Amino acid sequence: MKSVKGGALAPKGFCGAGVKSGLKPSGALDMAMICSEKPASCAGMFTTNKVCAAPVKYTRRVVRGGWMQAVIVNSGNANACTGEQGMRDAAAMARLTAEATGVDERLVGVASTGVIGHALPMDKIEAGIKSAAAAMSVTSESGEDIARAIMTTDTFPKFHAASAEIAGAWVRLGGAAKGAGMIAPRMKHATMLSFITTDAAVEPKLLKKILSDATNQTFNCVTVDGDTSTNDTVLVMANGASGAAEIREDGDDAKAFAAALTEIMDRLARDMARDGEGATKFIEVRVKGAASEKDARLIARAVAQSPLVKTAMHGNDPNWGRIAAAAGYSGARLKEERLSIYIGGCRVMENGAPVEPPCAKLDRAIRAKDIVVEISLGLGGAQAHFYTCDLSREYIEINAHYTT
Amino acid sequence: MKSVKGGALAPKGFCGAGVKSGLKPSGALDMAMICSEKPASCAGMFTTNKVCAAPVKYTRRVVRGGWMQAVIVNSGNANACTGEQGMRDAAAMARLTAEATGVDERLVGVASTGVIGHALPMDKIEAGIKSAAAAMSVTSESGEDIARAIMTTDTFPKFHAASAEIAGAWVRLGGAAKGAGMIAPRMKHATMLSFITTDAAVEPKLLKKILSDATNQTFNCVTVDGDTSTNDTVLVMANGASGAAEIREDGDDAKAFAAALTEIMDRLARDMARDGEGATKFIEVRVKGAASEKDARLIARAVAQSPLVKTAMHGNDPNWGRIAAAAGYSGARLKEERLSIYIGGCRVMENGAPVEPPCAKLDRAIRAKDIVVEISLGLGGAQAHFYTCDLSREYIEINAHYTT
Repeated sequence: MKSVKGGALAPKGFCGAGVKSGLKPSGALDMAMICSEKPASCAGMFTTNKVCAAPVKYTRRVVRGGWMQAVIVNSGNANACTGEQGMRDAAAMARLTAEATGVDERLVGVASTGVIGHALPMDKIEAGIKSAAAAMSVTSESGEDIARAIMTTDTFPKFHAASAEIAGAWVRLGGAAKGAGMIAPRMKHATMLSFITTDAAVEPKLLKKILSDATNQTFNCVTVDGDTSTNDTVLVMANGASGAAEIREDGDDAKAFAAALTEIMDRLARDMARDGEGATKFIEVRVKGAASEKDARLIARAVAQSPLVKTAMHGNDPNWGRIAAAAGYSGARLKEERLSIYIGGCRVMENGAPVEPPCAKLDRAIRAKDIVVEISLGLGGAQAHFYTCDLSREYIEINAHYTT
Repeated sequence: MKSVKGGALAPKGFCGAGVKSGLKPSGALDMAMICSEKPASCAGMFTTNKVCAAPVKYTRRVVRGGWMQAVIVNSGNANACTGEQGMRDAAAMARLTAEATGVDERLVGVASTGVIGHALPMDKIEAGIKSAAAAMSVTSESGEDIARAIMTTDTFPKFHAASAEIAGAWVRLGGAAKGAGMIAPRMKHATMLSFITTDAAVEPKLLKKILSDATNQTFNCVTVDGDTSTNDTVLVMANGASGAAEIREDGDDAKAFAAALTEIMDRLARDMARDGEGATKFIEVRVKGAASEKDARLIARAVAQSPLVKTAMHGNDPNWGRIAAAAGYSGARLKEERLSIYIGGCRVMENGAPVEPPCAKLDRAIRAKDIVVEISLGLGGAQAHFYTCDLSREYIEINAHYTT
């Protein structure tokens, strides 16, 4: 697998654009459109939040058909908690996109992100859709614009693409994602916004299974603030434009495709954690030796989500007691006397007791921009990981005045 | 029931002190001792964290006997994650207290709070115990000193006392608590530190049941940061010095006593939330109309714990979409179309949709120091509440450099 340029537009047969429609007071890019030259098999993962946005309800139905050709996304307004009006507006976004692109309305997915509880300004949305349709191209600049147009409090656009030899041909996969805040994906069927494209051909049901597995290993292992959004959506479209044979069975080709998809999504997931609201550090929590994968995930999530762990990391404070405490309240099976903890490779707790004297390299390890926290349970062979970031004053700054 | 002075020393037959032993670099009070003139029936609730401090393990065993006469507490060091040494040190604290007070060693409870993962400096502890035993008095000044000596990042001491007519006599109840950080009590058998005294006489098993119920309605409804501590401990000692008849059955007297105990603990719980690390506001989340009490608690906890809700409150931002989102991911049964939300009595969401135009009083309500958030589910008759505080830059400030 090798990296290529272009993000979601790297695969053959996809065009798109990111444009300004005036939804963001800053005047930044705020609408993205991705369109395949022909209908693509598709799969989606959506938030498990019981309060879920109109575009999630709408697009969940579209995805059920197994095919999609275009997706329209706006930032600046989540179209969530907007009642019946919200459902009408989401459907109108699909209809307007179909009209502007010539794609069958039933093959248009819709996603939104931004503030909750406000009706979409449909005049701006309509103008934005028209201008996006007119601006579509296959350039890597447009690929980056798509990633920029879905940003909210993100500080950099998140997009990756790669090519890999799968099913006897070189296929490409690309994707864009947005993260930053209200990030704690628990997508039984997925979280946050991400749009993945590929010119591989994959049968819809198999694509769904592969996406589900990949999401659990990537986006569902990210937490910024523990707040699971109303709008989380991951969509993948596979249009087969590479000419590679269709992958229909769960064999070697499917495994190769799954590995490539997981890699792209993992890169996007890491970017999301690295760019969490107010983040100055990327933190990877690895749990090993757990009695079950569920236990390993419970601990990885609890540690990654602990405000006390995250603030300690922010302050370059190797306060590993907070890591032990979070592991202890996670709900997972744990024996204190077998618990060991490492920060940046330095062992700080061994079998339930402090390591004395402390590791000489600890001070350097805790000051790094990328920190790996390892937790060893000594109970079994299961493992899991979670990505997060530190918790800074800027997180408060950003979120104390998001709507007002 | 009427309020009286003296905190944990208000009830008859209890003396105590709060002293300095040099555990805190600031030189503030750091050791508290409470002693009953005779053995008191006792009950305790302890953290459910699987990584739990040596004093918790030690005192859990003492409480099992049903009787206690003295309790020794230090702040500045949690004696958690300290292995076998920690267990020896906790036992030594009890033995030294027994020696200094003449109380049977088996009737001494021990509690600690502070940084995790460091061995107790036993020379300072020993000197502190001796000076506490020498300083004990029944004055309300000593009652306040006890509350001060158990503080960590608390900004004010938390103590309350009241007298009530129960079982044919006027009895008194008093208590001290500390909160501030690593506060999210989930004490199946209790969280944080609190020491309650009463001169009522209550049979130990009944006392345990009453304490358990009261804890669930009070301390277990507080969250500051969602981090459940390794050291949470609530102890109640009932020495019968009022001369009131012993309460042995779950009848009217027990109910009256439970109501008084719950009231004292509720006041301490509110103080804990109000004085959460970095707090500028007290927030009460009330959930009603839930299908079950468990559902109501899940939602109340999720909303009270949401960093996005807490930062919005900090910024006087009535961003109710975050409240709806937190309710939605709580895991509780919820129907978006029946969900209504009120902030300070102002309805902001009704049956799943925004209230337009927004309530004129909303701006004033969101700027208040005390904010009540009400969530109405329309699914049943169950309700619950949770206390929390806003999330400010000061929280980060305090926690980024707690050990270093």
